[in-house]
Amino acid sequence: MELFQTLTVEEARECLKQHLKWRQEGEKVFLHEAYGRYLLKDVLAPEDIPSFDRSTMDGFAVRASDTFGASVSLPAYMEVAGETLMGQDAAGFLETGKAWAIPTGGMLPSGADAVVMLEYTEDLNEYTIGITRPVAPGENVVRRGEDVSNGSLVLRSGHRLRPQDIGLLAALGIAAVEVRNPIRAGIISTGDEVVDIKETPQPGQVRDVNSYTLYGLVIENGGLPILYGVVPDEFTALQGLMIKALEENDLVLISGGSSVGARDVARGVIASLGKPGVLFHGISIRPGKPTIGAVVEGKPVFGLPGHPVSAMVVFDLLVKPLIKYNCYPDEKGNNLEFPLRAYLTRNVRSAAGREDYIRVKLSEKERRLYAEPVLGKSGLIATMVKADGLAKIPASREGIEAGEEVEVKVF
Amino acid sequence: MELFQTLTVEEARECLKQHLKWRQEGEKVFLHEAYGRYLLKDVLAPEDIPSFDRSTMDGFAVRASDTFGASVSLPAYMEVAGETLMGQDAAGFLETGKAWAIPTGGMLPSGADAVVMLEYTEDLNEYTIGITRPVAPGENVVRRGEDVSNGSLVLRSGHRLRPQDIGLLAALGIAAVEVRNPIRAGIISTGDEVVDIKETPQPGQVRDVNSYTLYGLVIENGGLPILYGVVPDEFTALQGLMIKALEENDLVLISGGSSVGARDVARGVIASLGKPGVLFHGISIRPGKPTIGAVVEGKPVFGLPGHPVSAMVVFDLLVKPLIKYNCYPDEKGNNLEFPLRAYLTRNVRSAAGREDYIRVKLSEKERRLYAEPVLGKSGLIATMVKADGLAKIPASREGIEAGEEVEVKVF
Repeated sequence: MELFQTLTVEEARECLKQHLKWRQEGEKVFLHEAYGRYLLKDVLAPEDIPSFDRSTMDGFAVRASDTFGASVSLPAYMEVAGETLMGQDAAGFLETGKAWAIPTGGMLPSGADAVVMLEYTEDLNEYTIGITRPVAPGENVVRRGEDVSNGSLVLRSGHRLRPQDIGLLAALGIAAVEVRNPIRAGIISTGDEVVDIKETPQPGQVRDVNSYTLYGLVIENGGLPILYGVVPDEFTALQGLMIKALEENDLVLISGGSSVGARDVARGVIASLGKPGVLFHGISIRPGKPTIGAVVEGKPVFGLPGHPVSAMVVFDLLVKPLIKYNCYPDEKGNNLEFPLRAYLTRNVRSAAGREDYIRVKLSEKERRLYAEPVLGKSGLIATMVKADGLAKIPASREGIEAGEEVEVKVF
Repeated sequence: MELFQTLTVEEARECLKQHLKWRQEGEKVFLHEAYGRYLLKDVLAPEDIPSFDRSTMDGFAVRASDTFGASVSLPAYMEVAGETLMGQDAAGFLETGKAWAIPTGGMLPSGADAVVMLEYTEDLNEYTIGITRPVAPGENVVRRGEDVSNGSLVLRSGHRLRPQDIGLLAALGIAAVEVRNPIRAGIISTGDEVVDIKETPQPGQVRDVNSYTLYGLVIENGGLPILYGVVPDEFTALQGLMIKALEENDLVLISGGSSVGARDVARGVIASLGKPGVLFHGISIRPGKPTIGAVVEGKPVFGLPGHPVSAMVVFDLLVKPLIKYNCYPDEKGNNLEFPLRAYLTRNVRSAAGREDYIRVKLSEKERRLYAEPVLGKSGLIATMVKADGLAKIPASREGIEAGEEVEVKVF
């Protein structure tokens, strides 16, 4: 019984988007703990950076207009009226025609608007220098607020904090910052043949691979994974565990038994949990076709294929953006999901109307990037381990020939 | 006094490499905690995956030779001699001319060497099916050990564990794995003008940006950062803190005061700590020239420039590989340090003989990647925050024109 049509990845995302209701809770963390977290709110600069006009060179602060016309043959001679010490208030006013000694990073005295590098000055005597080259106003100076001005928007809500962002927050004196709570992802494995890794599989049984792969994927993308273990393909047992996982998480992943019967049980259970329930069953990609997408009371639930490779590909396309960004990338905006371009080393066939994701090994020769398809049946875990990334074959193509460029992402 | 010549990045790496002595200690962690960690030893498969011949389809296990010549008009009729239940031992022997019902993932009975998909069979009666299409030996079957064979090398020492690698370890029943201890990196900020973010800067003072940026960079690359705070540009104070940091860490980063005097103090202190001491002072890159590289009793010590942007670039080139991989990438091997190719949107000038790293904002239009230089003085932190990545201008070039391709890395 096939009630649902097969959707493209874009259609599947659109469909999920319409029913998602994300809570927007957060917590305040110290900068030490902020790396990789997502901002809950916009950050506005509470002050100027720098908070004073700052020299970028060792030399002499001057009024630029006093140096106009200066040259080696006709230096501009100036009395040294004062000196800025590192980390000290310049605490002075520079009169016309005078100079002020200053180190890199030092504060300009008021009145000064430029710095002459030490290399372009000569000592005449203890109190007088000659300037051998003119400077323009603002030269070798970072003006107050030039880096960041008070009140400006420095980081947007939802931005993932990189090391430089944390540095900027430190510069602004923002020692703690409000970040989103990580998305909690419940992980359930089903399948009568699947046993936990702590057990010894009997003939016909296999160990639970997907729970551990998904656990790593959730962590990699900033989420908080919770393992619910392995449950047989049995309606009541799976339903009980699903209800618990939905209560305790923002999102639930079931990686299904591989048989048709197991998939039917998973779909039946998801459909029983609440509204709107199952939105699609099947997406037009390979691997990953037998995917179930659902939303229950605003929370997404995914029935991922049992094959580890398929489960990873579907996670990457449908689950990862939700955990990492709480949303799907805007199709109209920049889309760097497959940022690399590489030359395919072998012909690869594909069916039109279906996106194919092939595992590739990357190598670089003479500054060109090559993607070699990793051969092997799609169910083999070893192929994912041998591969460096995934290459995408668009739905419009029936294959890619060796030497053509493909779009690749590293995983 | 300039005793050291300016080195290229490659020369600097080579120079450091010769004196590094890394300890190789590790710990055993459960798979849950293994994501992103680096293997201490090679991992050999302790068993076959799968551990039995496994069907990849719902259908009937057969001897392939019994199906040769079968067609819709002349099906091969076979008695159904048994059925594999999911997760159960097939516990049977398939005689010639017979078939055996099997689900996807199910175990083949001995004697069978292929599976006919359900779609290519017809029910004749309760005990007999007709096969309408021949199968080749091995078709729709993953043979015992086909994914991973017992004793084979599955992951190499030093490999960083990705989600799929953790999945593979789970499949093999390896519930705990020996990984390298993270590299401990001590971080010291110097500069008479620098104050901790908990303090309110007075006129002429700035907050400590580099400690926090470096803290995030060390975490990002799998290291363990330890902050030692801000110390004035004073020999004895800096020396005392450096000795402590060297004892407690595998690597020490000092981000220097920006003035010539401050750099001299840092170099003097590093030189006083032990052999071989300072290896170079100055690398031919921009930004990042005034970098000090040293090794003390086998441990690397870096004097990074005071400018946050320069400190980040130098970290990326010289420190990151040591923290992430415990070594520098092999020049002869694959080099994916700058994996993206993008079209530059403006002319950028550069000096020949010096590598330039320019901050760029990336965008994608019609499947082409563009890199727009982020303008602004090199000391400005905001330019690092606005940028998505760094583009490299090789030492051989005197600039890149708009429309030319550049190599880019995202940061």
